[in-house]
Amino acid sequence: MEVYVAEIIGTAILILLGDGVVANVVLRKNKGEGGGWIVITAGWGFAVAMAVYSVGWISGAHINPAVTVGQAVAGVFPWVDVAPYLIAQLIGAMIGALLVWLAYQKHFDATEDPGLKLAVFCTGPEIRNYAWNTVTEVIGTFMLVFGILMIVVSGGEFLTGQAGDQLAQQWTLGTWPLIVGFLVFSIGLSLGGPTGYAINPARDLGPRIMHALLPIPGKGTSDWAYSWVPVVGPLLGAVIAGLAFLAVEPLFI
Amino acid sequence: MEVYVAEIIGTAILILLGDGVVANVVLRKNKGEGGGWIVITAGWGFAVAMAVYSVGWISGAHINPAVTVGQAVAGVFPWVDVAPYLIAQLIGAMIGALLVWLAYQKHFDATEDPGLKLAVFCTGPEIRNYAWNTVTEVIGTFMLVFGILMIVVSGGEFLTGQAGDQLAQQWTLGTWPLIVGFLVFSIGLSLGGPTGYAINPARDLGPRIMHALLPIPGKGTSDWAYSWVPVVGPLLGAVIAGLAFLAVEPLFI
Amino acid sequence: MEVYVAEIIGTAILILLGDGVVANVVLRKNKGEGGGWIVITAGWGFAVAMAVYSVGWISGAHINPAVTVGQAVAGVFPWVDVAPYLIAQLIGAMIGALLVWLAYQKHFDATEDPGLKLAVFCTGPEIRNYAWNTVTEVIGTFMLVFGILMIVVSGGEFLTGQAGDQLAQQWTLGTWPLIVGFLVFSIGLSLGGPTGYAINPARDLGPRIMHALLPIPGKGTSDWAYSWVPVVGPLLGAVIAGLAFLAVEPLFI
Amino acid sequence: MEVYVAEIIGTAILILLGDGVVANVVLRKNKGEGGGWIVITAGWGFAVAMAVYSVGWISGAHINPAVTVGQAVAGVFPWVDVAPYLIAQLIGAMIGALLVWLAYQKHFDATEDPGLKLAVFCTGPEIRNYAWNTVTEVIGTFMLVFGILMIVVSGGEFLTGQAGDQLAQQWTLGTWPLIVGFLVFSIGLSLGGPTGYAINPARDLGPRIMHALLPIPGKGTSDWAYSWVPVVGPLLGAVIAGLAFLAVEPLFI
Repeated sequence: MEVYVAEIIGTAILILLGDGVVANVVLRKNKGEGGGWIVITAGWGFAVAMAVYSVGWISGAHINPAVTVGQAVAGVFPWVDVAPYLIAQLIGAMIGALLVWLAYQKHFDATEDPGLKLAVFCTGPEIRNYAWNTVTEVIGTFMLVFGILMIVVSGGEFLTGQAGDQLAQQWTLGTWPLIVGFLVFSIGLSLGGPTGYAINPARDLGPRIMHALLPIPGKGTSDWAYSWVPVVGPLLGAVIAGLAFLAVEPLFI
Repeated sequence: MEVYVAEIIGTAILILLGDGVVANVVLRKNKGEGGGWIVITAGWGFAVAMAVYSVGWISGAHINPAVTVGQAVAGVFPWVDVAPYLIAQLIGAMIGALLVWLAYQKHFDATEDPGLKLAVFCTGPEIRNYAWNTVTEVIGTFMLVFGILMIVVSGGEFLTGQAGDQLAQQWTLGTWPLIVGFLVFSIGLSLGGPTGYAINPARDLGPRIMHALLPIPGKGTSDWAYSWVPVVGPLLGAVIAGLAFLAVEPLFI
Repeated sequence: MEVYVAEIIGTAILILLGDGVVANVVLRKNKGEGGGWIVITAGWGFAVAMAVYSVGWISGAHINPAVTVGQAVAGVFPWVDVAPYLIAQLIGAMIGALLVWLAYQKHFDATEDPGLKLAVFCTGPEIRNYAWNTVTEVIGTFMLVFGILMIVVSGGEFLTGQAGDQLAQQWTLGTWPLIVGFLVFSIGLSLGGPTGYAINPARDLGPRIMHALLPIPGKGTSDWAYSWVPVVGPLLGAVIAGLAFLAVEPLFI
Repeated sequence: MEVYVAEIIGTAILILLGDGVVANVVLRKNKGEGGGWIVITAGWGFAVAMAVYSVGWISGAHINPAVTVGQAVAGVFPWVDVAPYLIAQLIGAMIGALLVWLAYQKHFDATEDPGLKLAVFCTGPEIRNYAWNTVTEVIGTFMLVFGILMIVVSGGEFLTGQAGDQLAQQWTLGTWPLIVGFLVFSIGLSLGGPTGYAINPARDLGPRIMHALLPIPGKGTSDWAYSWVPVVGPLLGAVIAGLAFLAVEPLFI
């Protein structure tokens, strides 16, 4: 039970801080308005780090269906727990989006462009091409999930084997969350340009549902036509990453 | 006694470096003038980290009444120490503001706009709406205090239980201060847009008092009409965070 | 065998994230377009960090012929392994470049300037002067390789001697990769201006070969006339760094 | 003997990377030209971190006469070693400046403004007022030296007392250098606006001497009239910090 609560809390923190930075940069009359790509990517990177620091020692802080599925494919997470994790992540993402909407209330009012209001909640491509947008999301998520499997799972197992459980606990609590945050920071900087790097189905779908539900003045479409890309692309990338890890892991461990 | 001195020193460092970065960016003819939101938020994040590194191992480095009150509500800090901690923090904040005024002396002279001079000392909203400004401060401070409770308090207790006191000391001295700094960096990036994220009553009130007292040429109002928001909002957020922690903690520990 | 696979994987990650950030900043219609030098240098710094976190505990994560050669000159890496490491690094770099081309497919189409398309793959000087460009690459790579020898090799040996193998394992897994990433971040900020800091022959040559091979619409020359500079300069810098380390090491260890 | 060599190497790295980032941002036709204050301050912060990682475990990596004098005043560094440390730091700073001049050779040629060429080597105030410029340098250096005394010296002593020598070694090698780097990053962001934060006599005087000596085409004055400020201010700040530490230390240890 506590792991599901932890996933809800962790994903809510992720979206509060992640969608929050987008709101700060794109909504009108904010102190961070026009802050640029370094602000966006740092914001999402720290959002992940803070969520993982908060609940990583409880649930592993997947806070992302792609991470959950990728670890299940790689054989390091039980398939039976996948569905409840995904539900918890979606609930958490919706709570986070609600909090962002509250925190930036007057700035939604002050912003005319409905596209910017939607951008706070979910991703959209700069050049709309569903096939290539999906490729970009596959590659970005592959990097995320394969990186986590190599660094956190495999590296952590290596550390425990070499240095014992004590240092592994410190790894869990103090080191790993920052690395994962920097990994997402890095993916945003390097692979986020074309689609805004959902690389997380819950991060995109949960807030998109909230955009559709909430009484946002002057809001436009929730762009459901695109909504499958940031779900299918990340899940596909996660499966490929899990399989790639299965292929190389026997070499390393 | 030493913990109160430590809180004074820590909060003075916080404000020297925190108000300092605002001075650098908003006052005229500085090398950092117009440096943007990434400069402001990095400056405040490192300000927190350096203050916590300096005195965290002595007093816990609350350097923020919201943190003190939130931890008292959560039952991990004695209520009897709350008042002296708050007084120490306010004194420290005033000392820090004085030092910033000295360091940027000629740039206060070179800046005409009284609003920018005030902005060095304390926060102000981009869209003035006391109710929603308070909501924003509540959410930002909730994130700060709940995050600290989950990461530093609960996570640290978990670490001590698993890995022993030795590693917990390293956690206290080497790891935790940077995490808290990045947490404030993150909150600034993601939730600082509407109100400038006081998320700390002493950080706002102490320097505001100094703005009123100091003989700053061409200064305008200290905006006392707004001054209650960055006091009440953060304290309210801290209480909610403490109660939320009490609600979820039994699940995790 | 596993070390060569690790070098391929690590160098592919390096180039996917490194060339990726250049694509994001210089290709048209990206969210990161015009993000500036802080985005480029942070992107490459985290690219290194993530590659080293992923495979550093397996192969040492040279991911750079200059690092391999420099360590061989310094006597801390066997000469017999140099050639296969270099081949693995070149293969990895080509794979990474291919992935970047896939991830930014439509943005290569949207960009007219063939020079910008080339810039995604490999470096070029701002002021073309082969001799001085080589000097810049020598100095940048000297800093990289000498820094690694002082910090990772010599410092790590010191740590093992003082604190034992357990903490040395944690150093390998948790600390060192971030330092090396920040070292490259630093070199980019401080020495990257004139030539774009290849400081790594594989990083430049592998993607340049891919630029020549891939069917990129509207691509121009691969600038083979310059291509020797980011190979010779870094190797020369690495040799000097290895010799300098041999000269000072007896003083320190 | 080895500690003096280490101080030379460390200070040379500091200035190569520190003056280097200024060259990248202010000299014409660089990829980092106009990169802004975040680039400058990050560059100097990482310059310090890399220098301290490289030689901190050998000589303590003062790389700054203010740090050496401050620690002597505080009673944690022998006065007899002060003079040779200072000489080593000055030599190192001159070597670093020479390397920057070589790395950016053609960009010195491409830049017309002699003031920008000087700015690569040493600091200058935005509003020239020797008294207040000195105050700014005093406050910035006080923050640096007092911070180091509280964090590295006192905190490190606390850590050794609590957790033993093993973790203290890890602190020395892995943790402390990054904190000091972030401290300088922070001081740059927050207190660097008026004078460009020398906060280090060797950092300013050594490169200024090189500016006077080197045959830089179209160079102007080396501004010797200002040159005493970044020497006297930092030394004064260091003495005050040492005395302040002596006053508060008995409370904490």
